[in-house]
Amino acid sequence: MEPVSAAVSAVLPAGGSGERLGGATPKQFCGLQGRPLVSYAVRAMERVSWISDIIVVVSPENIETMKSIVEKYGHKRVTVVKGGITRHRSIFNGLKVFAENQSSNRLLQKPEVVIIHDAVRPFVEEDILLKVVTAAKEHGAAGAIRPLVSTVIASGEDGCLDHSLERARYRASEMPQAFLFDVIYEAYQQCTDHDLDYGTECLHLALKYCKTNAKLVEGTADLWKVTYKRDLYAAESIIKDNLSQQICIITDLKEAVAQVGFLLHESLKSQVKDKEYATEEIQQLVDMLEKSNIPLLYPVILILVHLSISENISFSIGLEELTKIKKFAREVKKKNILVYGLLIQCKDHFSLQETVNSAAALTMALIKDRNPELIGQLLVA
Amino acid sequence: MEPVSAAVSAVLPAGGSGERLGGATPKQFCGLQGRPLVSYAVRAMERVSWISDIIVVVSPENIETMKSIVEKYGHKRVTVVKGGITRHRSIFNGLKVFAENQSSNRLLQKPEVVIIHDAVRPFVEEDILLKVVTAAKEHGAAGAIRPLVSTVIASGEDGCLDHSLERARYRASEMPQAFLFDVIYEAYQQCTDHDLDYGTECLHLALKYCKTNAKLVEGTADLWKVTYKRDLYAAESIIKDNLSQQICIITDLKEAVAQVGFLLHESLKSQVKDKEYATEEIQQLVDMLEKSNIPLLYPVILILVHLSISENISFSIGLEELTKIKKFAREVKKKNILVYGLLIQCKDHFSLQETVNSAAALTMALIKDRNPELIGQLLVA
Repeated sequence: MEPVSAAVSAVLPAGGSGERLGGATPKQFCGLQGRPLVSYAVRAMERVSWISDIIVVVSPENIETMKSIVEKYGHKRVTVVKGGITRHRSIFNGLKVFAENQSSNRLLQKPEVVIIHDAVRPFVEEDILLKVVTAAKEHGAAGAIRPLVSTVIASGEDGCLDHSLERARYRASEMPQAFLFDVIYEAYQQCTDHDLDYGTECLHLALKYCKTNAKLVEGTADLWKVTYKRDLYAAESIIKDNLSQQICIITDLKEAVAQVGFLLHESLKSQVKDKEYATEEIQQLVDMLEKSNIPLLYPVILILVHLSISENISFSIGLEELTKIKKFAREVKKKNILVYGLLIQCKDHFSLQETVNSAAALTMALIKDRNPELIGQLLVA
Repeated sequence: MEPVSAAVSAVLPAGGSGERLGGATPKQFCGLQGRPLVSYAVRAMERVSWISDIIVVVSPENIETMKSIVEKYGHKRVTVVKGGITRHRSIFNGLKVFAENQSSNRLLQKPEVVIIHDAVRPFVEEDILLKVVTAAKEHGAAGAIRPLVSTVIASGEDGCLDHSLERARYRASEMPQAFLFDVIYEAYQQCTDHDLDYGTECLHLALKYCKTNAKLVEGTADLWKVTYKRDLYAAESIIKDNLSQQICIITDLKEAVAQVGFLLHESLKSQVKDKEYATEEIQQLVDMLEKSNIPLLYPVILILVHLSISENISFSIGLEELTKIKKFAREVKKKNILVYGLLIQCKDHFSLQETVNSAAALTMALIKDRNPELIGQLLVA
């Protein structure tokens, strides 16, 4: 990724009430795999090294909620700012943090370019952020767009069709957008109360008050805004899908991988030997995962595999043992680690392949579903 | 629901290539819970008693696929028609079935009102269909609309923002739409090749060629069009959600309910007694479900519950028994019935409540997830 030769910060309006969602919780605070949606958007910004400050603007009653989210998930470079009664007023408040000394927040360093991105668009990639920032440096303003999915129409006063727009000529304006800070801040200072109360489009303000025609950048489908309940379902499925691509979850820690491999091997060995669950090695593994901070952001799946090839098919497992796995799993779930048991047992080497295939299918199902209700169950391949 | 005093039929264009989905299978043929999306839309039309004929228009290469879907899922009143190379040409072909004698299809009775609905909008309700049909009878044309989620903008030739539309003044045009048959058929006969090749909006044709200003009817959020992969995820979750509201699945057959209740009781009794799975009663239950045709449309969950309260906690289950459940489950899965085992066991009445709660949570998880990979597993509450 090209480095960005400008000071860049980001403002995330997260003040919406989520009334279109039909629930009591505003959508930005709805949990996906246990973590609030807004935390995913913050994380998407945070992992981009060239973004200096991340301003999250929330309505007054959610300041404490947002601060505790930042604390809980260990977000860095985040400042929580009190929003206004409309989207534009909230964004304006966010920008003020860089320009005006305010009692509640320290003055942050004014960036050359500011990104504006919705808290309810969790899947924004560094690639598109770089594109809009680069275009904003050149054109003063830039925003992601997408093709229209439906035809747009205007209705007359009688509730009947007045005219329809030619779909190919128009685009949906999406996020992220980026602006030279001075351009968008000037626009907000100049604009009317009517703009602040009824407007929705930052690109429009830059055009109207600073004569800046934003560069439009084709975005990807996953920039869409989580609006309805079905969008939460979709987001959750995408997260699960992405997670299930990462079977070896400890990719960043080379030493740990080796150690985990060793421990898995040891615990497998010990379990094959004495059929004991929740051994010392597994506890060590859990401790290590906890220290890695990975379970902070995503539920980690841990599958305890029993491998046993024996002609004696009268293997049986006692209720006491099952209860033990379950108790252990419940304990570890508090750390966002989901433990399942998997028994790979067959009577001879001839049937091994089939059993291993079945074990692989079960493993994939566990990893894909991450169902917290099934923790501590012993599945049989 | 008010009866409709007009002959009504429906045309479902299902010729799309689904290129926005990014998969090889056009989205209308993608499986949701094992059944193609288009079958859900057909079913939504079919269950409305006052819709006479349902015309499904598919591209030439999918005629046989579509016919086999109609056959497999037992759809009635459906005629499969060969589509054209664009959406408008396909809809026109669908309408022709009512107006022109064609070699491949018999001439169907011309309806007074025709509904046009996308095959990729599976959740359309009778309520909105009635509204657009009633409005079409009065106004000549009518269509469902939704508020815009994003601001709509026009770009200049330089790829920069030209202007943005005031979001509140515009609406997204969705489906279903309905027309007096003579109005829309006249419009299609009059319109130019350019309209047929590049247009997307039927309401526009009715306005342009028949001076008919369509009545716009506010639709619900679930009318949205399955367009991207995330929409398939969302649709699947909505289907699972709806299904999990129906725990007693055999609501229409009073006699059967009693019988199922009796069988469940009997099979519980027999299982408590001799710990045997896949008994005769369960087989009867499966046969009955199969006869009900319910598993044809949706996967049915069948949970074999073992209840045992005993001081003897050294209960153990043999591998052989587990293998037996699994084999049975695999067999029955072919009939779209998903079988799981659930063991509710506790040593005394004091711990019963906790165990029952756990059993309820597991049951809900099984019903909600409908995970085909976990069939035949014995879960322990």
